[in-house]
Amino acid sequence: MTNNEFDMVNINNQIKKLHSYYSPTIIAEVNNEYVKIAKIKGDKVPWHTHENEDELFYILEGSLVMELEHQEPFIMQKGDVFVVPKGVKHKVNSDKECTILLIESKTTLHTGNVITEITKSIKNQKTHIF
Amino acid sequence: MTNNEFDMVNINNQIKKLHSYYSPTIIAEVNNEYVKIAKIKGDKVPWHTHENEDELFYILEGSLVMELEHQEPFIMQKGDVFVVPKGVKHKVNSDKECTILLIESKTTLHTGNVITEITKSIKNQKTHIF
Repeated sequence: MTNNEFDMVNINNQIKKLHSYYSPTIIAEVNNEYVKIAKIKGDKVPWHTHENEDELFYILEGSLVMELEHQEPFIMQKGDVFVVPKGVKHKVNSDKECTILLIESKTTLHTGNVITEITKSIKNQKTHIF
Repeated sequence: MTNNEFDMVNINNQIKKLHSYYSPTIIAEVNNEYVKIAKIKGDKVPWHTHENEDELFYILEGSLVMELEHQEPFIMQKGDVFVVPKGVKHKVNSDKECTILLIESKTTLHTGNVITEITKSIKNQKTHIF
């Protein structure tokens, strides 16, 4: 059965298509937000801030260390959902491979106001799957 | 380890707290959207439209029949993500229990412009967990 003119995606299939770490990939858009998936392994995400946008993290596989400025780091496990409020400086890392779902505004740069070797433009976040 | 001043929720734990069908429950808010979980069993969701808002469906457990006006119904399976674009009349049903995650604008009424026995206000969508 097909869904005719609109596209349905399966998150588990999309995860299999993720071939590199730190490459958020847009799987859907809803209103002003993008839903993205990404794999993280290591500590390459820099401290950064999204001044005007919240960012939701949902752990699909593995676990992730979430660090917020001026707070103790905490561990997110599979199924955990956490929203980094706008304006809060943060970074994430993971010793082992971790797969996450993100909800971010279409205007959000995934490394915020910081450009590093892992920074991808929105255009490049679309290239993997679309 | 705690996450200090901000709240983290675990979706699997929240699903266990869902005690009735057709009761979308807000688990997070990000920018202008609510993330909700709900269980569906049966065919009580009426045909309805959200004129100005897209609505994202993500199947966490089970399967769901998605019906869009003027199109063949299609089945969503676990892991499937589908966005009902704003203005598209739709309904969903499931013979067996199905657990879904929804992303909806804060202004969205979950049964759109149609009020039925299952319609819940946003306030009532918060009461289960918060």
